[in-house]
Amino acid sequence: MNRRKIFLNESEMPTHWYNIAADMPNKPLPPLNPRTRQPVGPEDLAPIFPMGLIGQEVSAERHIEIPDEVQDIYTIWRPSPLYRAYGLEKMLDAPVKIYYKYEGVSPSGSHKPNTAVAQAYYNKQEGVKKIVTETGAGQWGTALAFACAQFGLGCEVYMVRISYDQKPYRKIMMNTFGADVYASPSNRTQAGRNILDDDPDSPGSLGIAISEAIETAVQDESNKYALGSVLNHVLLHQTVIGQEAEKQLEIAGDYPDIIIAPLGGGSNFAGIAFPFIGQNITKGKNTRCIAVEPASCPKLTQGEFLYDFGDTAGYTPLLPMYTLGHNFRPAAIHAGGLRYHGASVLCSQLLKDNLIEAVALQQLECFQAGVVFARAEGIIAAPEATHAIAQVIREAEQAKKEGTKKTILFNMCGHGFVDMKAYEDYFAGALSDHQFTESDLKSALGEIRELQP
Amino acid sequence: MNRRKIFLNESEMPTHWYNIAADMPNKPLPPLNPRTRQPVGPEDLAPIFPMGLIGQEVSAERHIEIPDEVQDIYTIWRPSPLYRAYGLEKMLDAPVKIYYKYEGVSPSGSHKPNTAVAQAYYNKQEGVKKIVTETGAGQWGTALAFACAQFGLGCEVYMVRISYDQKPYRKIMMNTFGADVYASPSNRTQAGRNILDDDPDSPGSLGIAISEAIETAVQDESNKYALGSVLNHVLLHQTVIGQEAEKQLEIAGDYPDIIIAPLGGGSNFAGIAFPFIGQNITKGKNTRCIAVEPASCPKLTQGEFLYDFGDTAGYTPLLPMYTLGHNFRPAAIHAGGLRYHGASVLCSQLLKDNLIEAVALQQLECFQAGVVFARAEGIIAAPEATHAIAQVIREAEQAKKEGTKKTILFNMCGHGFVDMKAYEDYFAGALSDHQFTESDLKSALGEIRELQP
Repeated sequence: MNRRKIFLNESEMPTHWYNIAADMPNKPLPPLNPRTRQPVGPEDLAPIFPMGLIGQEVSAERHIEIPDEVQDIYTIWRPSPLYRAYGLEKMLDAPVKIYYKYEGVSPSGSHKPNTAVAQAYYNKQEGVKKIVTETGAGQWGTALAFACAQFGLGCEVYMVRISYDQKPYRKIMMNTFGADVYASPSNRTQAGRNILDDDPDSPGSLGIAISEAIETAVQDESNKYALGSVLNHVLLHQTVIGQEAEKQLEIAGDYPDIIIAPLGGGSNFAGIAFPFIGQNITKGKNTRCIAVEPASCPKLTQGEFLYDFGDTAGYTPLLPMYTLGHNFRPAAIHAGGLRYHGASVLCSQLLKDNLIEAVALQQLECFQAGVVFARAEGIIAAPEATHAIAQVIREAEQAKKEGTKKTILFNMCGHGFVDMKAYEDYFAGALSDHQFTESDLKSALGEIRELQP
Repeated sequence: MNRRKIFLNESEMPTHWYNIAADMPNKPLPPLNPRTRQPVGPEDLAPIFPMGLIGQEVSAERHIEIPDEVQDIYTIWRPSPLYRAYGLEKMLDAPVKIYYKYEGVSPSGSHKPNTAVAQAYYNKQEGVKKIVTETGAGQWGTALAFACAQFGLGCEVYMVRISYDQKPYRKIMMNTFGADVYASPSNRTQAGRNILDDDPDSPGSLGIAISEAIETAVQDESNKYALGSVLNHVLLHQTVIGQEAEKQLEIAGDYPDIIIAPLGGGSNFAGIAFPFIGQNITKGKNTRCIAVEPASCPKLTQGEFLYDFGDTAGYTPLLPMYTLGHNFRPAAIHAGGLRYHGASVLCSQLLKDNLIEAVALQQLECFQAGVVFARAEGIIAAPEATHAIAQVIREAEQAKKEGTKKTILFNMCGHGFVDMKAYEDYFAGALSDHQFTESDLKSALGEIRELQP
């Protein structure tokens, strides 16, 4: 009988997060204050984040210790299993070994709790009483709600109204973990009221929800704000994924030729790839790391490397990143976690320096891959995760064509139990592919060029 | 750091299923042919089940070997983790150690695939091309769809129409695994057409769906039928749960004083409890095994031990069991898997012989327990599983009152990711408790007494 899953014991969990900034040949450019166009300092961030996280955001240390309290809560689902995809390999009949790290075993069903728990911990440490955040489709809000329940922190979530109405079950999951969830725009904030005055039926947006969450957080000194991707400290916390995978592959006697993960803001890609990119840089390893983005939101493959806001409303510092412009509105694909206009600063710099690769895939190919995977492996993937699976299938077919053996590792970043509407639409033929054109790009980047220092 | 999860390696999985019939002091009474009132023989069952399963249904062997092909597919999610519920223990502050076996890690999110894979295997072995079944809320249909995909078998599911309409995502999960799903009553069978002639808007019932599935299965020699609970061979396959738990508890240095599981037909209770009941009988152990049923469907605590049909339509053999009568219509509680009029023959005989205990709980107490559990442990439980959690809390409170130390093991038989409507209704105050009265029982058992041999 083949060994399908490789587990580590809780005592073998990584003891430190890995900070890739320490090893990057070109360090990331600093975020800028949009008014002064000068680098932001810790004091600019202190009203919204605890100092423990701000320190990580700017740290140059290679390894940052994971506190015991965080480790203890990680053990609810970590170490996550590494699977050898025997079922998929058999179906593809190519000269490849395929492994996947399965993050769907977490309380919210994705990789998000890896950072939610860490963020809740540092907030708790500094006496914060409540964390306020926004959520789109709900994965991040659910993860933070779970983490806050573990530390006895309050949690308030502004959920984009159209998702609030269309995905009531994600809201109920957050309620079950004890969070208060409000449809955004709401009349609880000035930002929300301004929008509602103009348009009482506004469907909301992530940008508006961020504004409401930040406004709420800064109103009360005992509250802070939290973000679920993009920032350096968020990517840092996710590196437990890749570090575990490295140990698990060592047990299997393997090392990956190719690593594949979806990229929305960058945290799940960073989580699995950064520890291996570090090996590429410092130990002469040669693993190809491929970020997969949706063809309808192709910032890595068609965007430009520019300073841009991280949010739609323009409240954040200016970040140096591959972007389609903060006003870009991606098509309403089901992979909601990949509908983000920019890529995190760390991932962007790595792409600029050719240390990672990027590819954009159409959603029909991705859902087809998801169905193949479910029947072969027994796991229904979240729409975001199907993007990685589709690229794995492409690489397997390429290896077969070339007759070369490859070992592929990918991040199965979440299950699809709460995303079945997406599969329903796929089976019903209600989904289509999206073409992104030169003129889309020109219009998306219009006013962004004026923001450059 | 406390060790929260205990995993076994795949190589430590049980090699045999445990057949409790071999150790029962009073053997179960035989099923009867409803026409002749004589015991049914294998030939009566051959048109609908493969001989491999019929052999297990009547076996007196204590241990039945698990085929390698079944073991191989089990490794997709087995061995399942045993959790020490540190979060819940802290919240309850009672002198108890609480462990739970988590079956929600399976492809369909519950314990059902343990038998679905075995059933698909024996059907495949005997040249069956397609398995036909019924499903209520969808857990069983999803499990069988997954199992059939693994063996390249066709799968056809008759899903009770009201669930088909109200729970479209369960249907899509089955489609994703490759099954064809039809709302029942359908116009594909004579049984369905008869119902639709009378009532074109019939919401369907499990009884009707069973009739349609059996009728479809027997029409073609290459098809067979499958059932997800109640029968001896189904309970047998679930015993991997308890056998794994026993090994995992041994690693933890513990043995349970109390085992708790929900009981619908009996397969999840049997799965965790039977191996320990065997130890009670043969090795003088003294573990209390408590089956928890919903107060709205209290066959164990208020039903009578009688011969009754296993299905509503009266197609099955007569089974000796605690029953509320096959025409009993339990209230539409969200724990759909517990809405069954009878208890399996094996569980019924064990209760009659005082080898297990039973308790009936109201749904509001169960959902309250589910919310406590989610916040303490990070896992949202299926409504069925909340019944076990509520009883665990009762036992912990009792132990605190008595000042006695207890080790409790329960079966967390499934997650609630696809049951959030139930929690929504609970939070909205839309659920109520149900009182079952003497006169309910009298009316429910009315015509059943005439069926006795």
